[in-house]
Parts: sequence; structure tokens; C-alpha cells
Amino acid sequence: MAGNTFGKLFRVTTAGVSHGPGYVCIIDGCPAGLELSAADLVPDLRRRRPGQSALTTQRDEDDAPEIWSGVFEGRTDGTPIGILFRNADQRSADYGDIVDKYRPGHADYTFDAKYGFRDPRGGGRSSARETVCRVAAGAVAKKLLARAGVRVLGYVKQVGDVIAEIADPTAVTLEQVEATPVRCPDASAAARMIDLIDAVRKDRDSVGGVCELVATGVPPGLGEPVFDKLKADLGKALLSLPAVLGFEYGAGFAVATARGSANNDVFVPRATQGADVPRSGIATETNRHGGMLGGISSGMPIVCRAAVKPTSSIPRAQRTVTRAGAPTEILVKGRHDPCLLPRFVPMGEAMVALVLVDHLLRAKTSRL
Amino acid sequence: MAGNTFGKLFRVTTAGVSHGPGYVCIIDGCPAGLELSAADLVPDLRRRRPGQSALTTQRDEDDAPEIWSGVFEGRTDGTPIGILFRNADQRSADYGDIVDKYRPGHADYTFDAKYGFRDPRGGGRSSARETVCRVAAGAVAKKLLARAGVRVLGYVKQVGDVIAEIADPTAVTLEQVEATPVRCPDASAAARMIDLIDAVRKDRDSVGGVCELVATGVPPGLGEPVFDKLKADLGKALLSLPAVLGFEYGAGFAVATARGSANNDVFVPRATQGADVPRSGIATETNRHGGMLGGISSGMPIVCRAAVKPTSSIPRAQRTVTRAGAPTEILVKGRHDPCLLPRFVPMGEAMVALVLVDHLLRAKTSRL
Amino acid sequence: MAGNTFGKLFRVTTAGVSHGPGYVCIIDGCPAGLELSAADLVPDLRRRRPGQSALTTQRDEDDAPEIWSGVFEGRTDGTPIGILFRNADQRSADYGDIVDKYRPGHADYTFDAKYGFRDPRGGGRSSARETVCRVAAGAVAKKLLARAGVRVLGYVKQVGDVIAEIADPTAVTLEQVEATPVRCPDASAAARMIDLIDAVRKDRDSVGGVCELVATGVPPGLGEPVFDKLKADLGKALLSLPAVLGFEYGAGFAVATARGSANNDVFVPRATQGADVPRSGIATETNRHGGMLGGISSGMPIVCRAAVKPTSSIPRAQRTVTRAGAPTEILVKGRHDPCLLPRFVPMGEAMVALVLVDHLLRAKTSRL
Amino acid sequence: MAGNTFGKLFRVTTAGVSHGPGYVCIIDGCPAGLELSAADLVPDLRRRRPGQSALTTQRDEDDAPEIWSGVFEGRTDGTPIGILFRNADQRSADYGDIVDKYRPGHADYTFDAKYGFRDPRGGGRSSARETVCRVAAGAVAKKLLARAGVRVLGYVKQVGDVIAEIADPTAVTLEQVEATPVRCPDASAAARMIDLIDAVRKDRDSVGGVCELVATGVPPGLGEPVFDKLKADLGKALLSLPAVLGFEYGAGFAVATARGSANNDVFVPRATQGADVPRSGIATETNRHGGMLGGISSGMPIVCRAAVKPTSSIPRAQRTVTRAGAPTEILVKGRHDPCLLPRFVPMGEAMVALVLVDHLLRAKTSRL
Repeated sequence: MAGNTFGKLFRVTTAGVSHGPGYVCIIDGCPAGLELSAADLVPDLRRRRPGQSALTTQRDEDDAPEIWSGVFEGRTDGTPIGILFRNADQRSADYGDIVDKYRPGHADYTFDAKYGFRDPRGGGRSSARETVCRVAAGAVAKKLLARAGVRVLGYVKQVGDVIAEIADPTAVTLEQVEATPVRCPDASAAARMIDLIDAVRKDRDSVGGVCELVATGVPPGLGEPVFDKLKADLGKALLSLPAVLGFEYGAGFAVATARGSANNDVFVPRATQGADVPRSGIATETNRHGGMLGGISSGMPIVCRAAVKPTSSIPRAQRTVTRAGAPTEILVKGRHDPCLLPRFVPMGEAMVALVLVDHLLRAKTSRL
Repeated sequence: MAGNTFGKLFRVTTAGVSHGPGYVCIIDGCPAGLELSAADLVPDLRRRRPGQSALTTQRDEDDAPEIWSGVFEGRTDGTPIGILFRNADQRSADYGDIVDKYRPGHADYTFDAKYGFRDPRGGGRSSARETVCRVAAGAVAKKLLARAGVRVLGYVKQVGDVIAEIADPTAVTLEQVEATPVRCPDASAAARMIDLIDAVRKDRDSVGGVCELVATGVPPGLGEPVFDKLKADLGKALLSLPAVLGFEYGAGFAVATARGSANNDVFVPRATQGADVPRSGIATETNRHGGMLGGISSGMPIVCRAAVKPTSSIPRAQRTVTRAGAPTEILVKGRHDPCLLPRFVPMGEAMVALVLVDHLLRAKTSRL
Repeated sequence: MAGNTFGKLFRVTTAGVSHGPGYVCIIDGCPAGLELSAADLVPDLRRRRPGQSALTTQRDEDDAPEIWSGVFEGRTDGTPIGILFRNADQRSADYGDIVDKYRPGHADYTFDAKYGFRDPRGGGRSSARETVCRVAAGAVAKKLLARAGVRVLGYVKQVGDVIAEIADPTAVTLEQVEATPVRCPDASAAARMIDLIDAVRKDRDSVGGVCELVATGVPPGLGEPVFDKLKADLGKALLSLPAVLGFEYGAGFAVATARGSANNDVFVPRATQGADVPRSGIATETNRHGGMLGGISSGMPIVCRAAVKPTSSIPRAQRTVTRAGAPTEILVKGRHDPCLLPRFVPMGEAMVALVLVDHLLRAKTSRL
Repeated sequence: MAGNTFGKLFRVTTAGVSHGPGYVCIIDGCPAGLELSAADLVPDLRRRRPGQSALTTQRDEDDAPEIWSGVFEGRTDGTPIGILFRNADQRSADYGDIVDKYRPGHADYTFDAKYGFRDPRGGGRSSARETVCRVAAGAVAKKLLARAGVRVLGYVKQVGDVIAEIADPTAVTLEQVEATPVRCPDASAAARMIDLIDAVRKDRDSVGGVCELVATGVPPGLGEPVFDKLKADLGKALLSLPAVLGFEYGAGFAVATARGSANNDVFVPRATQGADVPRSGIATETNRHGGMLGGISSGMPIVCRAAVKPTSSIPRAQRTVTRAGAPTEILVKGRHDPCLLPRFVPMGEAMVALVLVDHLLRAKTSRL
């Protein structure tokens, strides 16, 4: 049983590889009546796009979405939304070596192990270009969320050992995020991140980091006990993205060293809350629970993080084996981001948005 | 749309609350022909059980499983396996206060927000007693995995600031894990963890930690691109457990500071591998990828971790609000673990086992 | 991938066999707030029960349902509803012969072919006693439907060559249906059906028939193009019941000989409608479309039929083969209905109700 | 929750409307290793295509499939298969009237009731052109089935009161079916059907019929108790097609008048079977059970039928109402089949093939 569909009620199914004709995305379950056009998908697709700055790969991808169905006279009509992306930049000659040699850190070997063979051009189905569909679907989800008063915003929290200082995650604005090519709203940290990424690239290496994602305006009550908890579905969503090796929310791994007396967030009446107002009469004084208790949204902001590994493709010779298992070396060609984080931000936002819309729809059926 | 079913091909559905007649678990999709009896479920249920030691709650739960269906003459027969657990210890008087006051760190408020009201006895559906079903289903999954040569084992990696030294996660044995009540195979760390938990309990507080889970013998090729990646489903599985705030595998959050040149695991022929032999002709020299590349198992051991928060129920008065939103104090009664980690181990193992069996069955259909 | 769950949003999962400890049913997705008790399930369970009259088998089944979860203080609380049925009458000695011989018309052989072996006691999982779970779940569904103004009622339309005259399917009352043990509201036909069934039983034979099912008050807009059309899900629901060999709605198979000019139902303003009033301003003059157009409910009554075969178990020696394939004879013991139709009525109603509730919940998410 | 995906393991998701840019189909779950090219899809698409003969509509649709993904070097590679169809003939001016008036027998009204509005061009999503995706996916399914020795073939069994005489459904060949434009292998009946359809068209009317579908070589053991029985999934599959009002298999509705003693099919050793050889050592002497017992395939040929209504679009003025509910008349323009049956045959075959492939894959996981 394959796994190219995400979501239960807002279902996104994708197909395509980076060096075929293009990608196909079908969104099934978008409610009728949402104003939508291809132009709505463009801003996030541009943020995802390679070649935005010296920090990202200089590959030129054509990310113009074509909506083939599901929208009539400017509004979604309840039928499935078909979106197409044509591939433009198919310089497959760059990838010849990977037919017979396994790139370290890549899925070449595991695809071979799973299916018996694979499309080696550009990584085939494991190419991160697949996220173009997720970002487009996420943009639709964000429009639905906006109608419900929910906003999803991500930013780069950490690159290497540079960690941003974010006093209030819910106060970060899109403008602050987009102010620098590294998408870190802490200007000082952003400058150091940029320097670090530059240094790493010159060193023909790559570096990892952490993306933080914040959803505000989330009504309490989203998330389905006991398996489809909101935290569980957010974790799955972000871990389904390429290069993500960890997920945490609220206090995250820091809870390991915490005491219950300090970790529990005290409930307070809403009046004691400031800008970060929850959507019911009850709030918590602090938000170490990251907006979810028992896996159900509490009305407090949802704050979560994904750990993203350094790009596996680096312009250096690396030891590996051939398909036959013989030791060899490989020099991965092509143009690659020295740090995935800046372009990861819209991908992470998209996945969070997809989960929240799915659970908003699911919650519609939880009470008489 | 509710969420009380886990898995796609090996499907576990559970119902029940801690202070009703009992729990019901249905496993649908277990292949016919597996030797199985209720006795097979008992060892892991005992490891999950409260009252095992001074480290865990002294509540007495009756965890004797009754298999009502799906097994004929000692073997699974392909029909759904129905398992029942009767509740014995229903001293609901202990919980009276939580009808009208929201316990900090608990799901009381979010259940109310979701459904309009809730069963307050013992936390109702949000009670961790629900994991009795997961552990039973996980025991069935482990038996299936054992037939495929796969072993799943967990242990406590960290409690508070005490971190176990585990030279080789794949060399840890069940005996080592069970040697101490804290389920940490590093004897020295275990002693300090026990001291810490004792101190915390005397302080009427609780403490968090980290559980590490290791699966060996996993064949390469498990995991379904692009959404149902093995890492994504493992993350969801563990995050669906109560009190888990973070998930990571392999190098985990440490990748944030890593360089690609150091993080990539080099492929090598199998002969260079020692005890920890993968199940194909190709291995990696190191295992920072935690046994998954592109979200598909590589044949290397799967190593992942879950961050578990300090028990929310602590024997101290805590500030909170009433259902009406008025400030008040609450003293949560009942008996609770000062540290969840020792009893978390079998729960974590169960969820890993459920994911692996599901993906073993799914992989059966990926090739002609 | 097994198939013991029905529905997408209102999900019913069942386990159990006729000669084990009992049956387990979990309903996941019932909205919170519905008044419910075990007593609500009893009336339909009684209608399904064997031994109601001379027309049905004299087996005595204990169908007292135990609700283990999902109901708190008399109302559903949004958590899964666990329902148990204990088996009482387990005279398995009656069935000894069928271990090695395949009963004609039964699933003995196909279960062996599928799983390699089977529980032969009472037919194991293929026993129609499994429908006790469906009828209980259907009773919950009916309660939800009643709140939405929807009523589901079935009756016996045909037994052998006796066909009931039903001037207006929507005018039939439960009292009329229950007035005779054969559950046919046409008293004259009912008498002839009873005579026919008596004659057939005396002849140690069985006879088939047709059950008609009517749902009134169904709002327009239920059913999900293009695959989960309401007609498709109703068909699946009824065909999933034992002994059903055909399904049709509205004009049914009679459309084969119809002309479009005569078959199309003309749309009319609602005012022209009589007792059978649809729930919008628009109706059709006739109802050959059986309340569904394009697989979506039109607001007109839903009328469908299931063809039920004569009971396969007849008290006569029949030719068959052994498990090894050698010709032999078998005399099926036990007590069996000479005609399944009277007891089929509540089963059919249950399946229709389950489909309608599922689609009512699904429709909640189809518009902003 | 929308419904544009069919199948559990072999999943077909479709999007598109008849007068937009085109249709998109994603097949997820096709095993890797199947030889496949766009040319494989063409024969069945041609059989489905309008304008094949005077019996069918003269619309010209461009049904050339474009495979965008899932096939590498001539073989499926385990990743999702994306197939596109561009719309050519978009004379939407023909349909202007149906914006404000509801066509009798069509889904115009029910779509409006469901979504609040609809795409009126060519029926939008309710257009039968949507089946182009099903037929393409069905062609892939047929290729998989052929590898397993399974053949699916359909033909027209009845048009109006003309009923074909088919001595042995399993002996019918594709050549016989394709010998006449009406796709009835009984040449004499075919001639009368053609005359009838001609007469009906001249009379500006339409006529219904029955399609019979036969699958041979089906191994015993397909179908999943108790809800996903093979008969139930076949019923759903065929009823999900436009215009189908009934489904039956084996003896079908005729069982209503049958006696058990005559209806039960006697098991016999395989040697007594002729051309119609099942795939195990055991067969039945007759096949009134249509190849399924307990909803599981018996190894005997699967024989089922779908009742197809007369085309709703007829070139006559018909009474109806406006969107506002006011009485009016409508003359449906465009070109329409006077009888849907000839073009229904490949659609019916496709749906049967999709169900059988899905259950073949499912059965892979039913035993150790």
C-alpha cells in the first residue's frame, strides 16, 4: 500500500518526478465556496523556489501552477482541485553517476531495495521538488485557515550553532521573516546565519538547522484522541518532509530535565492574556504545552519545531558503494542548497496548514 | 471524524475509559497462522502495569487480557482479534475535584472544549490506562516481527539530567533493561536515575526523561513515499502516546549543528559490519540516519527517541480555573508515577512494533 | 488488508464468532451529545433475533448488549462506543460434520481457501450472528437520523412468487410491518407468504425473497461524487450482508426496458407534493430515481431493494466434497430459518441507517 | 469528506470536468515492475469513446492519455502513476440553458443542493466523461490481472426487451463482443438491439439495458469479510458509474423465487469441470453463486450484471423547474447516446478490474 495521499478530510494526493513531464496534485475535500485562483498559490511557491538568493541553489525551476479543476468562476466548487506543474529544467546529464552509485545520505539505495529499481534522474520521486505540490496545497489550506482566523507562520530558528532570539513567537510577522534571505526574524542572528552559510558553501559543505512554526488563532478542540492527536499528526506531517530528523512542540526535548511543578502551565482567565489571546474564555499563563493538551488544541498558540539535516548533496567526493556493493567514490553534481532551512520554511508552513485544515474539518463532526 | 484506529493494514481500534467496565481492543488485519494466546500478551502488560516498584504508581490495575475472537486452536485465523480488559480499581471518589476544575497539564479543558463535556472519572478517555490496549496489540505485533527476524527493544535513556551511556544501542538486551526498575541498561546511570526519582517524589514533584527505542533486523525497503515515510509514521506513533513532546531518530536534533560532510553515513559492503549486520549486501559505516533514508528503512538498525514530560499530576496544590473560568486551586488526588519513563518503555516498544508490522505488510504489495 | 470496519466518519468495527465468548463492536465517530442507553438498542435486536416465531429459527440467542464506553451520564461523549454481546447458545456439537465437508452455498470452502483454515463452529466469522453488531450500531445511527428528521423503515416485499402490493412505500408504518411475523405490511400478501414459508419448511427446503427499504426526510445533498455516491455506498452496505445477491434502487432493473421519456422524473415545485414532502423547495413528480440523482440524494424518499437468497442450510442431504476434494454427502444440522427475509428487515434497515449517518456527517464538510 | 478516490491498495484518484482544461488521474499503489506505456491504455479508451458508430453520440472527444509519472523505462516503478487527458471539444455554448434550469434525470439539482452552486458546462463533474480516467486506470488493472491469469470481459446482455442468449458467459470472446457496434456477442440479438436503438433515436428517445461482466481465472480467496466482501465492493464499483440503478451477481434477483434445494451449487472435484476450470482442486457443478460465497471468490467465474437506465438527455422538450423552483420547459442540447450500453461495457470492465486488483493485493496480506 503506497503512501502518496496526505490527510483524511482535506486529502492531498501527489504524483510526479523531477525529470519527467511534471507534477500532478489533487486536493480532494476542499469545501465549496472558497475564492481561489492560481495567483493565490504563487507567493508561497516563490518562497519555496530555488535560486532566490545566493543562499539557495541556483537551479531554475518553473513553478507556475495550472489549476485544471475544482474552481469555477473564481470559487472552489466542492469537486477535486487538480493542479499541474510542468518541469522545465531537466538537465539530467548532471546526474548520470547516481545510476550505479549510491549517494550517501540519499534515498537511492532504499528505493532500489524497495522497488527493485528506480528512476535515477534527479532523485526521481525522492527529489525535494515534490514539495512544490505540498506548498501549493498548503496555500489553499492557508486560505481556508485565514477564513477561520488561523494564521500559520514559520521561520528559521537555528542554523548550525547560531540560534535566533525570539522573544514572542506569536509576534513575528511575515515581513520580518522575509526581510532576509535566510528567513530568520532576528536580524542579528540572521546576519550570522548568512555568514555561516556562506562559509559552509565556500568550504564545499552544508549545514543543518531548526525551523520553528507557529499557528495562532487556533480554536480549542482540534485533534482526535487517541491516535490522531494533533501533536501526532503535526509530527507526521513535518517528518514526512525530506531531511527532517526530529520534531518537537512546546517545551519539546527540554521536558526531559523539567520538573512537573515547573512544567505545568497554569490555567488563567482570558483577561490575563495579552496580545496572544486564545479563542475561549480560558488561557494558560505560559505555553510550555505548545498549544496542545492531550493532543487537542487548547486555544493557545501552537508552537513546534523541526530539525533539518545538512544537505546530503555536497560538492565533494564521498566514499560509497556501487549497486553491486563494491566500494567506490562519488562526486554528486548538480546545484544544491548549502543549507535547506530558508526554503524549508514554506514547506513546513504548508504541512502545518494541511494538518490544521484537516482537523478543522474533522472537528465539525465531533458534536451534535 | 474520530481517531481511535491506528494503522492501515494492521489496524488497531480501541475503546474504553479508566473507570467504566473496561477496555475493548480490536486488531484487524493480523495474518492467519500466527501462534497466539492471551499468555503472549502478559509479559509486556506486566511491564506497563502500575505498582511494579516504588518508582511507579501504587494503583492496582487488573490487566488480564481476554481474547474473544481471532484465534482458533492456538493460531490467528485471519478474522479480527477482539481483546478485553476489565477495570478493577475504580475508586472514582478520588477524582471528584476535577469535575469542575481543570488540572494543569491535563486534557480536561481540551476535552470539554472539543465535546462540550467529558467523563471526569480518572481522566476518562485521556487516561493513560488506554495504553493497555496498545501494549497488548504491540505484543501481537512483536510476535509477527519475531517471525520476520525483527526485534524491538526500548530503554530509558535519560531522566532529568541523568543520561545513560549506551555504547551500542543494538547490543542492549531485555535482561539489561529489566535488571532495574527504572529500565535503564546502564547500571550506573540507573542507580542515579532511581535516586533522582526518589528525591523528586519526596519533593512531591515529578520529572521527565527520554526513552530510546531500537529495532534490529529490519529489512530494507519499509516505508512508503512520500507521506507515509517510516520516520513519519514512527513519529506519529510515539507522539500519539500521552506525555510525549518530542520525537527524533538517528542524529536527531543534533543535525542542526552538523555539517553534511560529517553527517552523511558512508555506504560500505556488508562485510565491514560487525554484530549489527544489516539484512542486505550493503550497509553504512555509521548510523546517523537512524536506519532510514528518504523515510525508507535502510537495513541498518532503527534508532529513535521520545521526549516524555514530567507527570502532570503532582501531589501539590496548583493554581487553575474552574469550568466557568474563575481562578481557584486544585490538589490532584490519586496515585501517580513521579516519573513516567519506566512504564513508558513497553508503550514505546508497542508503538514501534505496530508501525513496523504495518509497513511489513504494506511492503508486501510494492512489487510484482 | 482485512475488512471489518464499515463507514468513513461513522465507523463500525466488529469482531467475534458465533461460538466463541461473544462479539465486540466499536463505533467510532458518533458525535457527542446523543442520548443513548443499552435499552435503545434492544427493539431492533429483538426484531433480528432468532426464535421470534415459527417462521424463524428456534435457536435461542442472548442478544443483550453491554455498552462499555462512549456514553457518560446517558449521553454519547464523543469517545468510541464499545458494545459487547456474549454468546449463550453454543451447542457446537451440532456442527461437527462441517469441519471436513463443505456445506453447499456456505463460505466454508472460501474461508479455507483464503486463510488456510477456519473456525468451523457455527460458521465462525461467516455466521449471520455477526449482524447483531450491525443492528446495534444501526440503532445508534437511527437515533442520530431521527434527530435530523430522517426515518428508515424496511419490510418484506417478496417471498418466492408472492409480491406485496405497496401503494406508497413512504406511507408504510412500523406497526404495519410488525403486525405479522413475516414483516410484510400488505396483510393479504403477508398471509400468503406465511403459508408459503410454512410449506417450504415442511418440505425441508427454504425460499428467497426481496426486502424493500425506505428512507424519508433525507435532505438533498448527501453522497460524494464520483466514487462514494450514495447509491454506491447503499449498494455496498446491503451487499455486505449475508445472502444478498442483488441491489437496486428506484426503478431498478426495470430501467432496462424503459424509455428515457418515460423514465425521467419531472421536477416540480414543492407545492405539488403530497404527504411525501421533500426537504427543499423542489421535488419530482414521480420517484423512479429512488431519491438519488448523480448518486446524490434529491430530497425525495430513498427507496431500494435487496434480493436475498433462500437459506443455504436446509435439512436435507446434499452432495458436496470433503476438504480433500472427495465427493461425499452432507446433512447440515442445527436450526435454520426456512426464509431469511423476516429477520433480514432490521439488518437491512441498519445498513441503510449506517450509510445515511456517515453521509450526513460527510456532508457537513462539503461547504464553507 | 469528498469521494474521488477508489480502492484501498490500488487507489485511483480523479479530478476534472468535461469543459475545463482536462482530467487528471493518479493511480497510487500499482506494484513496481509492470510493463506499461500509454499505448496500453488506448484500446479500452477507444471502446469508451463517443462517436464510434451511429449508435453512440457523435461528440468528438480527444482521449489521448499522457502518462506523466510512475513509469520508468517502460515499467512501473512503484511511484504514483499520473495520467492526463486534455479536453478538446468544449462547445460549452450548447449547454447554456442548464445554468438556470434543472435537467430531468441529471445531477444538476443535487449538485446545487450539495455545494450551493455548480459548474454547468457539460454537467461539470457529473459528466460521464469522467469515466475516461476509470477506463485508463482499469486498463492498468487489467494488465496486472493478466499477469495473474485473470481476464475481465463485459458485453451487452439486454437492450430494452431484447435479451441476448449467452449459453456460456465464460466462452464469450473479445472479438465476439467487438463484432458489432452494440457489443452484444449474440449476433441475432445484436441485430435486434441495433434496430431498437435506431428506432429509439429516430423517436428522439433513449432506452436502457443490462451489461453482464465476467471474470475468469480468479483465484479463490479474494474478498474481505465482513464488510469488504468482494460482492459488496463489486456492487459499489458498478453503482458508482453514472446511470446504474441495479447490481446483481450469479442468480441475482431471481433468487427471490428460488428454493434452497435448487439454488445451492453442489461442490464437486475439479475433474468434473469443463472449459470453465477453477483455480483449485474444488469446483461447483453450477454457478448460481456467481463465483462468490460468503463474499469471497470461490475460484468459479465471477458473473455480475448492472442495470443501466435510458440516457436522461433526450432531444425533446421536458417539463422541469428553474433554480428558483418555477415551472418551465427545457430542451437539452448537445449530442447524446440514445443507449448507453455499448459504451458502458469498457467502463464496467474497468470497475470490475479495479476491484479485483485491489483484492488481489489485499489477499497478499491475509496469511503468514
